[in-house]
Amino acid sequence: VKRKTCDILEDALSRYSQVVRDIASDGVTSAGAGSLKARWRKDKLFAGYLDSLTVDLIVDCEEYPYLNMDEHYELRINSPDLENSALLTSQTIWGILRGLETFTHLLYLEDGGKAVSTYHSEGCMSREIANLPFRVNSTAITDYPRFSHRGLLLDTSRHYLPLSVLKLSLDAMAINKMNVLHWHIVDDQSFPYQSEAFPELSEKGAYNPVKYIYTHDDIRNITEYARLRGIRVVPEFDTPGHTLSWGPAVPNLLTPCYHDGEPDGTFGPIDPSVPENYVFLRNLFSEVVALFPDKYLHLGGDEVSFDCWVSNPNITAFMKNNNLSDYDRLEEYYVQKVVDISTQLGASAVVWQEVFDNGVILQNDTVVHVWTGDQETELAAVTSKGYPALLSACWYLDHLQSGGDWTKFYECEPTDFDGTADQKRLVLGGEACMWAEVVDESNVLTRVWPRASATAEILWSEASASTETEVAQRLEEHYCRMKKRGIPSQPPNGPGFCP
Amino acid sequence: VKRKTCDILEDALSRYSQVVRDIASDGVTSAGAGSLKARWRKDKLFAGYLDSLTVDLIVDCEEYPYLNMDEHYELRINSPDLENSALLTSQTIWGILRGLETFTHLLYLEDGGKAVSTYHSEGCMSREIANLPFRVNSTAITDYPRFSHRGLLLDTSRHYLPLSVLKLSLDAMAINKMNVLHWHIVDDQSFPYQSEAFPELSEKGAYNPVKYIYTHDDIRNITEYARLRGIRVVPEFDTPGHTLSWGPAVPNLLTPCYHDGEPDGTFGPIDPSVPENYVFLRNLFSEVVALFPDKYLHLGGDEVSFDCWVSNPNITAFMKNNNLSDYDRLEEYYVQKVVDISTQLGASAVVWQEVFDNGVILQNDTVVHVWTGDQETELAAVTSKGYPALLSACWYLDHLQSGGDWTKFYECEPTDFDGTADQKRLVLGGEACMWAEVVDESNVLTRVWPRASATAEILWSEASASTETEVAQRLEEHYCRMKKRGIPSQPPNGPGFCP
Repeated sequence: VKRKTCDILEDALSRYSQVVRDIASDGVTSAGAGSLKARWRKDKLFAGYLDSLTVDLIVDCEEYPYLNMDEHYELRINSPDLENSALLTSQTIWGILRGLETFTHLLYLEDGGKAVSTYHSEGCMSREIANLPFRVNSTAITDYPRFSHRGLLLDTSRHYLPLSVLKLSLDAMAINKMNVLHWHIVDDQSFPYQSEAFPELSEKGAYNPVKYIYTHDDIRNITEYARLRGIRVVPEFDTPGHTLSWGPAVPNLLTPCYHDGEPDGTFGPIDPSVPENYVFLRNLFSEVVALFPDKYLHLGGDEVSFDCWVSNPNITAFMKNNNLSDYDRLEEYYVQKVVDISTQLGASAVVWQEVFDNGVILQNDTVVHVWTGDQETELAAVTSKGYPALLSACWYLDHLQSGGDWTKFYECEPTDFDGTADQKRLVLGGEACMWAEVVDESNVLTRVWPRASATAEILWSEASASTETEVAQRLEEHYCRMKKRGIPSQPPNGPGFCP
Repeated sequence: VKRKTCDILEDALSRYSQVVRDIASDGVTSAGAGSLKARWRKDKLFAGYLDSLTVDLIVDCEEYPYLNMDEHYELRINSPDLENSALLTSQTIWGILRGLETFTHLLYLEDGGKAVSTYHSEGCMSREIANLPFRVNSTAITDYPRFSHRGLLLDTSRHYLPLSVLKLSLDAMAINKMNVLHWHIVDDQSFPYQSEAFPELSEKGAYNPVKYIYTHDDIRNITEYARLRGIRVVPEFDTPGHTLSWGPAVPNLLTPCYHDGEPDGTFGPIDPSVPENYVFLRNLFSEVVALFPDKYLHLGGDEVSFDCWVSNPNITAFMKNNNLSDYDRLEEYYVQKVVDISTQLGASAVVWQEVFDNGVILQNDTVVHVWTGDQETELAAVTSKGYPALLSACWYLDHLQSGGDWTKFYECEPTDFDGTADQKRLVLGGEACMWAEVVDESNVLTRVWPRASATAEILWSEASASTETEVAQRLEEHYCRMKKRGIPSQPPNGPGFCP
């Protein structure tokens, strides 16, 4: 380590040293390092031993990852001015993290049969590792992401996910250089977020008020784990729809639905006509904004059904009194207030596309999240109004086919829409979405990985000139890499095995 | 335990005692047994404490499970002549095993909120367990399976499955009262079976000749584990197609394919014109038949492509010399010899339906396995010729949809075809098939369970009068039961949680 260091870097060096040792532990069993060295020396392409990786962080660490953080890094191994050594350089800790990940991908085991390589890594990073039987190519890499927001949505409302699974997901995201965990933490089905201001929300709304909740400590545990990997955690509290689990705890929060002129005992979206509801939301979001370090809060706003509002005479009266001509305007009334609350709390907002479609006046930095309909039309519309956009429409991981269905994710290009270069620049990136109706802790990881790796590569790399066969081969290797790193992953292509 | 016992019974008692303790360990945490007892005494439906389960095995244990074994059992809890106690009776150890499984399904935890129950189990089975806070209904059950062959096919060639996963699969099968593991052990892609007579088969044909093989000890380990659970293990060595992985080890085994009059370096099915191939198969199958205790050997015979045979001039000459008029007759020639070999070795055969379709003369007890085409037509044809049949066509677990797709498996009725009562009786049962192109050890269990539970219930129970909603609820409960028993299982229906 040259120049700067910090807790993120120290943690990463320790973590990646272990990764390198783990990769090596396979290889050492089959051949002593001494005999390997002798063999390598006879190799025509042999150029020397790699003693160490030097990590050069140029500027002081930033504490938290953020949108548009600099993730650029350079990695040189045995370049002309750098004989028999390797150097990872970045202006930022975020670049160093991405570069360390890349470095581990460059190490091949002797037995892997995949190396056309010239180098032997004798020590890595913190010099704890010597005589590991790797081969690595001489190389010079300059690397940075095409999109700054590369996310994975996990849904902990349809099925609760334990912290261990969330952490494995973050590990996998780091391997795939994803940098945003979009935590769809609550929804109709359950409210696992334990609020300190409103503990009755999870007491009455969680699947189990003791076992299936996330305490503030749990959440800090996750956001810290993510921070150390350069991953943002953006929580979503989706309103006014998708809130049935909120209802039992908060009197008058949800709209009572009527049938034949009487409340029928069922409930609809949050009742926009009750002023106290905005006070409640301000207090809840105030807590959330203080708890999650990220600047962004996802406010949801998707799939608001108007049926219940239509049935309710109080809503009708409220609309009349407020000159709201239709239910789109009523929704706009509600969302406008919620967006304003988040702005007043100092948060930037992400909203699902319906909010934009309904004509809500958004802050300039409010991000519109495109998830349905014709994505090209929607992206063009959103960016033509100058709003930043995120794309998920083509990356729904719950849409399932038998095997090999990563190709449809790989074929999605976020800039494929009619628009100016300025409009294209407003596409911040996208997210693969793992809605959890039919996944729980048993199968969520294998369903996400390596399918979401296709999304991750599209969002990081230049639009690829690779053929599908080449990508399939790389993905097969990557699936094995993830399994070796402890991520349950499913076969991406077909029959096969990991070496 | 009254009357008979044996190693299978002792092992089962120890196993199910642990199951009961594990179920109880949740409940004990939330309420002391003493206070529960007091509460229960006030319950109007309370009828007394259940002190123990008496297991009465009437006849000496049989050593191995087999087709048409008797699995009938009776289970009575607090019946009039049996106050405050429970009795499990069966003529056979196989019935006792099924009854023990059922007994554990009858125990409800106080907190589960699902009991309309009258009983408290103070001790179970071997009297090791006292004061466990269960509730259980008074009941009298007489139970036996509708079909005698209730199987799961696992494919260890497309992806290797470690022994731990095979054992978990057997555990899950026992929970679902399935009684045949159809082990599709080798195929085109790899040959993990380590033959002692022909070790080069796995040396050259396994994905990895050290890591990804099954030794004889491994296989005995699995067949013994299965035997203790009343589960047969039927190995499949599929020929003459699906044998590419056999080729490298056995000169002249596979048919060389020709292009423009020259061998093109590719290979087709086993070459039926080479007499030594039948010697090889006899020796290999002789070893297999001695190793696997089950009387049945699955000979495969599906999907034989004729292209390579057509291209090969030696095959053409051979057919002419043997008056084989077309390639169906050539296939018949081959399969007839292989079926005869298995008969001479004392094995009964199972074959995929193509063998029957091609008119091979089968032994009376050869079982025809229906997997494709119109299942009603095929079942009618097979049974009209007097052959026993197995059904898998409607139970392909690799055919995947998003969530809830067990309904299509549940809607399949094996006796739905035009035929006499005698013909219907020839349907021995069926198998759910987990072809492993896109499953490996990471996701095979969650993909099978609880989807295969639908097949298991169809094969065990009377054609159901349950509505789909009722089945869905039972399956949800069953999925949680399996997860508690350590089987990774996926959500069968939609959002939810396990208590």
